[in-house]
Amino acid sequence: MSSDVTTVMETLGKQAKDAAKVMRMVDTKAKNKALLLAAAILRREREEILAASAMDMKAADENGLDAASKDRLALNADRVDAMADGLEQIAALPDPVGAITDLVYRPSGIQVGHMRVPLGVIGIIYESRPNVTADAAALCLKSGNAAILRGGSEAIHSNRAIAGCLRRALVDAGLPQNAVQLIDSTDRALVGALLKSEKYVDVIIPRGGKSLIERVSAESRVPVIKHLDGICHVYIDASADREMALSIALNAKTHRYGVCNAMETLLIHQDAVDCVAPIVKAMQEKGVEIRGCEKTVAAASGLDVKVATDEDWATEYLSPILSVRIVDSLDQAIDHIGRYGSAHTETIVTKDYDAGQRFLREVDSSSVMWNASTRFADGFEYGLGAEIGISTDRLHVRGPVGLEGLTTQKWIVLGSGQVRG
Amino acid sequence: MSSDVTTVMETLGKQAKDAAKVMRMVDTKAKNKALLLAAAILRREREEILAASAMDMKAADENGLDAASKDRLALNADRVDAMADGLEQIAALPDPVGAITDLVYRPSGIQVGHMRVPLGVIGIIYESRPNVTADAAALCLKSGNAAILRGGSEAIHSNRAIAGCLRRALVDAGLPQNAVQLIDSTDRALVGALLKSEKYVDVIIPRGGKSLIERVSAESRVPVIKHLDGICHVYIDASADREMALSIALNAKTHRYGVCNAMETLLIHQDAVDCVAPIVKAMQEKGVEIRGCEKTVAAASGLDVKVATDEDWATEYLSPILSVRIVDSLDQAIDHIGRYGSAHTETIVTKDYDAGQRFLREVDSSSVMWNASTRFADGFEYGLGAEIGISTDRLHVRGPVGLEGLTTQKWIVLGSGQVRG
Repeated sequence: MSSDVTTVMETLGKQAKDAAKVMRMVDTKAKNKALLLAAAILRREREEILAASAMDMKAADENGLDAASKDRLALNADRVDAMADGLEQIAALPDPVGAITDLVYRPSGIQVGHMRVPLGVIGIIYESRPNVTADAAALCLKSGNAAILRGGSEAIHSNRAIAGCLRRALVDAGLPQNAVQLIDSTDRALVGALLKSEKYVDVIIPRGGKSLIERVSAESRVPVIKHLDGICHVYIDASADREMALSIALNAKTHRYGVCNAMETLLIHQDAVDCVAPIVKAMQEKGVEIRGCEKTVAAASGLDVKVATDEDWATEYLSPILSVRIVDSLDQAIDHIGRYGSAHTETIVTKDYDAGQRFLREVDSSSVMWNASTRFADGFEYGLGAEIGISTDRLHVRGPVGLEGLTTQKWIVLGSGQVRG
Repeated sequence: MSSDVTTVMETLGKQAKDAAKVMRMVDTKAKNKALLLAAAILRREREEILAASAMDMKAADENGLDAASKDRLALNADRVDAMADGLEQIAALPDPVGAITDLVYRPSGIQVGHMRVPLGVIGIIYESRPNVTADAAALCLKSGNAAILRGGSEAIHSNRAIAGCLRRALVDAGLPQNAVQLIDSTDRALVGALLKSEKYVDVIIPRGGKSLIERVSAESRVPVIKHLDGICHVYIDASADREMALSIALNAKTHRYGVCNAMETLLIHQDAVDCVAPIVKAMQEKGVEIRGCEKTVAAASGLDVKVATDEDWATEYLSPILSVRIVDSLDQAIDHIGRYGSAHTETIVTKDYDAGQRFLREVDSSSVMWNASTRFADGFEYGLGAEIGISTDRLHVRGPVGLEGLTTQKWIVLGSGQVRG
């Protein structure tokens, strides 16, 4: 690592640490003031932000970026307003910091409980969407943390403009501007340096495609909160209400294709084989390609079903393709999910109490559902108000991560002079 | 890494993963049965365990182990009974697994809540104390996890005997014996292999001295729950009750010297300088060496106080030495703790409401106390029933780690056919 990169990262890290020390003690009112000011500045400087975005879009054209990437990168007046709206929504959320819970008296006479506190310094590594700059910074700010942001190099002008608005808002609210810092360089070595900054950074949250997340996981010395794959399953049990099964399967697959909580594999109990043809038909009417096990192909005779390979069960299509497997039993469904799933979100459709209870208990995913669409695995739907991402890790936080996921707890003890005997 | 080491670790890892899949669904009754059977087997086979321990002690003599290490390594009838008692105590604790909390209706009609679930496979790396084999395995077992144990090579015979008892108890209770596995080899390369087994191991908990924990932290690819230093502070505020201050300071320092929650540095507000002489005197009567700042030396004139160096403030003595500093203000005390502390446990002694509230909020340690001895930072004192260690990390769990710290939560969603619109 060049000494320049090390120096830049040291400076950013120290500044973040100093800002975090202030931010963790700031009251809710000041944090909300900064968020609302940031929203106002974003709206007021919409034209400047769009001019910055135009520079990114021009470079994107020159570099031959594909259409999907350009769509993610693009900003327009509505998208800037949506960012400002997002900041106002985060200002309206309850502040998790300082909450004291479970304060109980112990036999020794001390009272013991938990106080919720910020994590400290959070590094966010993301790709082309410039709105992440505003969203992620705002969630870190509201939860009393300092953020070091590293966006995609293709979005550098947009990110610089947006981060600038947030930093001015912090100053105007009397808070340290270094509570939000953007790594203002496209040097990739700085990502490596950030991942090695365990002295300054408390957690890294990568947001982006699989290759980014794999790189971050492999290289990071800092703890990472991440979500790798979203291979979500719907399991239609023998006793499922057939209409509900069709409705949930369709919603889970076709409501949006490119999202991590979309269904990728449909499992159907052999005693619910009558579901196969109607579901395949309905999916195909929506333009979904079906890849089935041999029993599925047989059950959907007359319909165009390709034979699924072993690879299909392990694939997150993120597109209008669905793999379908008929299973002998609930056990086989649970086994299949354990073997091929990504521990993101799975749902069972059943009227049977025992089957539902077993599925809830035995499926080891960050979200396990009973008679609801996998699409509900989302911070807003769960009542978090907003989310910085979804975690498929096991430690600290699983599933949608909101403000509380960006905090931790310390123990507090209130005594009246107790000593240990 | 030699292919042998890789193969051994792969086998242990796969076996642990398979056992964890069973253990996470096992009911409380079966887990308690295994724990009580293990206690009975330990008592029944006390002589065999002591014979194994004698082999370790003989090797310790031959290898010239020091007296303190030999004391940690030694087993006798009482210590075996204490292990059995510990297993019975863990059997009596409530089972955290499966608990559903915060299940609320959302506007969409779904109910969303959390279910507590085991972490999975836990690797425990420890040093000479063989009782850790029983304690750690029992906590992992009760919390529905599978344990891979790696004890100190000097304790291999004792650990093998103890782990054997636990494994037989698992079988007798109808549970997978691989829920408890001992790395039955003194090859140090296996520690390295364990730390790289992110495919099979969900978390590593090192228990031992600083060099062990530093090695584990530096090498591990698996998330680590650890506690590095315990540089704990008592701060006597201007308005402290003088008698309480003396009593808490004495208890925090002299109740036990070699423990992580013992006070290492005493901070005294300049307006409480009248405390200095009586405390120094009382400490010296207990045989504690005092190293003070210049103001302390002046305030304790006539008493034997050495001048503290900058290194003293950053030292965990774990022995009858105490550093003492007189500070100008609460702010200076909080700064000192932030700069030299290890984020373990700090306490303020004060009658002043504002000072106490600020200390609780602004000191960023895993335990922050008000008018109580730092010695209370302990799983039993906090009501956890038992502890596997103390965490000074920020993520997942901070402070004393009990059964709940060995679990995580998943989201559960109960619906009646809801889809996202």
